[in-house]
Amino acid sequence: MNVYRYEENPLLTPADVKPHRFDYEVIGAFNAGVTQFNDEIIMLLRVAERPVSDDPNIIKAPVLNHKTGELKVLSFHREDKTYDFSDPRAIKLAGQDSFVYLTSLSYFRIARSKDGHRFTVDDKPFLFPKTSLETFGIEDPRIARIEDTYYISFSEVSPVGVGTGFASTKDFVHVEHHGMMLAPENKDVVLFPEKINGKYYVLHRPVPKSTGAPEIWIAESDNLRYWGNHRYLMGLRPNHWDNGRLGAGAAPFKTEKGWLELYHAADESHRYCMGAVLLDLEDPSKVLARTNQPILAPEASYEVEGFFGNVVFSCGALVDGDIVKIYYGVADTSMACAELSLHEILASLTYLEN
Amino acid sequence: MNVYRYEENPLLTPADVKPHRFDYEVIGAFNAGVTQFNDEIIMLLRVAERPVSDDPNIIKAPVLNHKTGELKVLSFHREDKTYDFSDPRAIKLAGQDSFVYLTSLSYFRIARSKDGHRFTVDDKPFLFPKTSLETFGIEDPRIARIEDTYYISFSEVSPVGVGTGFASTKDFVHVEHHGMMLAPENKDVVLFPEKINGKYYVLHRPVPKSTGAPEIWIAESDNLRYWGNHRYLMGLRPNHWDNGRLGAGAAPFKTEKGWLELYHAADESHRYCMGAVLLDLEDPSKVLARTNQPILAPEASYEVEGFFGNVVFSCGALVDGDIVKIYYGVADTSMACAELSLHEILASLTYLEN
Repeated sequence: MNVYRYEENPLLTPADVKPHRFDYEVIGAFNAGVTQFNDEIIMLLRVAERPVSDDPNIIKAPVLNHKTGELKVLSFHREDKTYDFSDPRAIKLAGQDSFVYLTSLSYFRIARSKDGHRFTVDDKPFLFPKTSLETFGIEDPRIARIEDTYYISFSEVSPVGVGTGFASTKDFVHVEHHGMMLAPENKDVVLFPEKINGKYYVLHRPVPKSTGAPEIWIAESDNLRYWGNHRYLMGLRPNHWDNGRLGAGAAPFKTEKGWLELYHAADESHRYCMGAVLLDLEDPSKVLARTNQPILAPEASYEVEGFFGNVVFSCGALVDGDIVKIYYGVADTSMACAELSLHEILASLTYLEN
Repeated sequence: MNVYRYEENPLLTPADVKPHRFDYEVIGAFNAGVTQFNDEIIMLLRVAERPVSDDPNIIKAPVLNHKTGELKVLSFHREDKTYDFSDPRAIKLAGQDSFVYLTSLSYFRIARSKDGHRFTVDDKPFLFPKTSLETFGIEDPRIARIEDTYYISFSEVSPVGVGTGFASTKDFVHVEHHGMMLAPENKDVVLFPEKINGKYYVLHRPVPKSTGAPEIWIAESDNLRYWGNHRYLMGLRPNHWDNGRLGAGAAPFKTEKGWLELYHAADESHRYCMGAVLLDLEDPSKVLARTNQPILAPEASYEVEGFFGNVVFSCGALVDGDIVKIYYGVADTSMACAELSLHEILASLTYLEN
């Protein structure tokens, strides 16, 4: 697989984004949803900010008060044995797998470009957490255009779980929030850009607890607000690069061979790569083919090193003839872009036996 | 709270149910959905069966092959250290919290009664697992009547997770399966028996993994098939009887004061009781009041002892004037019924401060 990484990579880093207020610092500008809007390429950046801390032994956790709109900051001492601070992203109770706070708060900000290489970041947030289900932030937006509306699916994080929020815009100025579309725990939700046989479809990624794994499902709708007929689509593969967790990446796009979905997966050591899966054009709940190897893996220094290294994670791609421009977050820190050949991606698929 | 337990309790036990085939034994007839149909009271029993085993050291796990409809039986030696057999209901990998197999397979069977005390069990299953999402069984049905149709929500269990299936019947002879309505992990789904301000509502109970707890949410629909606008409704209470997990029980019913929902909850030592919560008649996402104490707790010998003891767990209740007939599973084994006064339940509610 030939991968052309832009010379400008990383295209945007935290240093390119002003924090939304002076006492916060930007630690991530990554995992952007991407779309073409008029003559611009829009990256809807996930911006992660944390309260400035002078003391490296104090870990802070920002929490939205959704009633007042204010941010409260909790402080923890790194030596406090009640907690486990080993994951830089989250605070856990000692001995537990689930988290109780995040160390940063994410929101969405628009970056614009004419050429897809050089981006300018808007001064103000585009979408900021506001509901009781978003008090720990909103994350990882995906954009799907259906007719003249751009739909944004994203993670809503709060102490009661991580679910999927849904919003829409026609102009990337005004945005309407439609509430939580899929209940916790669910992330990595991408909408198909058109109805298929009269129904809308999404790929989604529940994280079950009692049994099962973080794997990709599909659901349908007749109005984009309410979803059902959930079916299991594709899962982890033991001894492969995608044996730890996986989820949809960019919104699927139509090819001659089927719907092509670029998905991310991590192995058991949390190395995140991108792969491809081909779904039936008429019935996207049918998996036709899948890549055995990643099409994009963390290799460049900005992919390997960072806040949470060894991660390439795409929330959006643009297709221009044979060129697939994969915009992707690197190391939970910055944004990059790589061009691949659609033809080569399709040729690298291994078809499933019937 | 005055609780009148029927003299006939337990109303049905595993001994009253013939296994669906000779090489299986019934170990549970419990957690029944309940409704009035014509002049009969219907209990839609969850029947749990396991393959007969001659050797107490061999633990068997039945699994449906959904392509052939056949049951495959896996055998495990109790001394096999790969697994953890400490929960009689499930087989786990050693050191893990999630399960990989169940030790029984559940399906639904109808029991009928004229007086609500003495029930006759149908000879054949009413609904048997059949889809790829039900290979470990179907569990804990709830019934809601809307106009002339009885809707059944239930757990679908398979290696990819525990989600909520949806089916309907008009005659308790023919049944139509509508697929999975809520994605994993989600159980304890009860439908409101009528539209409220133009929308259908369900209470549901996701089990998030990364953060959050097993608590009650509410969702809405315009067609009963597709669900959205998920909102958090009510949660665990530290130092209360409902501090471990909770979920909706019987379908909510209308009272002068609001929608009354009888819910189950467990404390941290897995003792399951029933409580009550009152929701706003016009907006059921608003909690008005909740009982501080259980309205029903495991006390009778058939509630305290059994396959999984110290459990009262209702999936259905009937209201007749001031009498609330709570049908409930006991000890994951049998069915019982208790009558409570609606007036007393309402009087026991503690209203939330605004």
